[in-house]
Amino acid sequence: MTDIYNRWQLEEAISPEKLIPAIEEGFIAYSQGKVVVPPVGQLLFDDPPGDCHIKYGYVRGGSTFTIKVATGFYGNAALGIPSGDGIILVFSAKTGQLITILDDKGFLTDARTAAAGAVAAKLLAPRTVSCIGIVGAGVQAKMQLDYLRHVVPTRRAMVWARSLKKARLYNVEGFDVEVAGSIAHLAANCNLIVTTTPSLDWLLGAADVRPGTHVTAVGCDGSGKQELDPQLFAKATVRAVDSRKQCAEYGDSSYALKQGLIAPADLVEIGEIAQNPSLGRQTESEITIADLTGVAVQDIQIAKLAVAALGQQLQVRVEVTDGEGAIDA
Amino acid sequence: MTDIYNRWQLEEAISPEKLIPAIEEGFIAYSQGKVVVPPVGQLLFDDPPGDCHIKYGYVRGGSTFTIKVATGFYGNAALGIPSGDGIILVFSAKTGQLITILDDKGFLTDARTAAAGAVAAKLLAPRTVSCIGIVGAGVQAKMQLDYLRHVVPTRRAMVWARSLKKARLYNVEGFDVEVAGSIAHLAANCNLIVTTTPSLDWLLGAADVRPGTHVTAVGCDGSGKQELDPQLFAKATVRAVDSRKQCAEYGDSSYALKQGLIAPADLVEIGEIAQNPSLGRQTESEITIADLTGVAVQDIQIAKLAVAALGQQLQVRVEVTDGEGAIDA
Repeated sequence: MTDIYNRWQLEEAISPEKLIPAIEEGFIAYSQGKVVVPPVGQLLFDDPPGDCHIKYGYVRGGSTFTIKVATGFYGNAALGIPSGDGIILVFSAKTGQLITILDDKGFLTDARTAAAGAVAAKLLAPRTVSCIGIVGAGVQAKMQLDYLRHVVPTRRAMVWARSLKKARLYNVEGFDVEVAGSIAHLAANCNLIVTTTPSLDWLLGAADVRPGTHVTAVGCDGSGKQELDPQLFAKATVRAVDSRKQCAEYGDSSYALKQGLIAPADLVEIGEIAQNPSLGRQTESEITIADLTGVAVQDIQIAKLAVAALGQQLQVRVEVTDGEGAIDA
Repeated sequence: MTDIYNRWQLEEAISPEKLIPAIEEGFIAYSQGKVVVPPVGQLLFDDPPGDCHIKYGYVRGGSTFTIKVATGFYGNAALGIPSGDGIILVFSAKTGQLITILDDKGFLTDARTAAAGAVAAKLLAPRTVSCIGIVGAGVQAKMQLDYLRHVVPTRRAMVWARSLKKARLYNVEGFDVEVAGSIAHLAANCNLIVTTTPSLDWLLGAADVRPGTHVTAVGCDGSGKQELDPQLFAKATVRAVDSRKQCAEYGDSSYALKQGLIAPADLVEIGEIAQNPSLGRQTESEITIADLTGVAVQDIQIAKLAVAALGQQLQVRVEVTDGEGAIDA
């Protein structure tokens, strides 16, 4: 039988300390061309509106390949159920056999996205972050801050959300969170900003962002979405992307490219910066951006980590059982 | 928790009597443009050679969508394990939630392929089939004959396989099977022929096929594969395909098209013939072909059938348990 693990088992198996470097390694392998990532499969629905994305691929020479399915139906909230679901299938790249089903209900996507935000901040944030600004107050908004604790020392944060009620309820353990009355106010007080909304129009204005700020945008993961004022790309000195191809197609970068505010050569991949820091932030006064659309290599990396951790847990469990058996005998 | 069913449960849940008409209905819906079927996702492996295909889609207005993953690693036989694996995921098209995992290990793909062969024979075989010829002796070769019993009365069959040993072991309950020394001998004695091999060069020659024969080819499901002499397409009067698009791209039809032996307009979909019999066989002396590459609508249909049957079984099981509970109390 195929092993199957549920969300709760996966939440226990994944630690940010291991995931953040694994995601960084994944970005490096991706930028080095070592990862086979076919175009994302997509299904769209009208009634009710929803989407399904299939991200799949493998690291060349690796022992497994991964297929991730994620759905988003934003009308679900009215039904009192989560807006998305997700599952990852891990197969042997040597025999094609299905090894493990990670029935994570989207947790692994949330975690690998948060880890990518931490990698971006680690590589691009200014040396001293005074306050972290979070735009959005959903699950991903919480996870971003929760993961940033591992790369940024400050415990001061500010949140803005379209729903003031949701912003007031926003809370992440160990952080002192203030609710911002406007995005402009948030931008005036924060030099590390993460946008995590499903917005269809830009929210963060170029004029509001202070010199020295790093901005990570994670919400723009499909065509039609947008979080950042395209002018911000002209103002920034580093425009980092997880995938040059995807971000040019439907990331926040795509709007700046279409408007001619930047050229394709202005985009640099996170995996390239990780290998060559001279491609990243050079001064404390420049503005940097990370445009994250989500790449299959992140799913590959988190699935590998989960399978390894769960395999170890399984081993531990077997040993414990053996011990109990000995006592019983 | 998501429901998960294994191969044995699925083998019990699927009956050919219900599956064959469900697959025919699926082909009709597909040809009517009622099915959303994005291009097949594909991963290829070199060392060892293998492939993975992701077929997915939904019938417009339906309550579910389906994602099917199938792998093929032909070197597995040397390891003593099956050459393929497979799994089908069924999601709600209304909320995006994963409803059921059908961990069928490829059984559902085998069954829906066999059912498609039965649909093709039902629509195109001559009125009186003297003997069924099966080219190939693997799992699909057996299932094709097993499903043909539901649409063709004869119980005489003849088999040819590259391995004489495998051909001699070929056996399907209720059939009187003779081993053919050559494909030419098989074609001389059979007027319904099914080819079910992973061959890379054509096996069944146009000159060997008798007038009045129907030929179904199911092995050519990816580029590079070929089972039928392209000249057979010129000789045939009906060149049926499951999907005009797929077959023109990589089915047996694609070779005949490339060689200019037939024109794209000569291809007719199974779903079109099912709606309009005048597009199919008109006389007992003509040669007809069905080129089957496998379409996601077949996976959608068999998954729906499985979920419905398993839901019923579950209900039956609950009732039985209630009864037992009453006795215990």
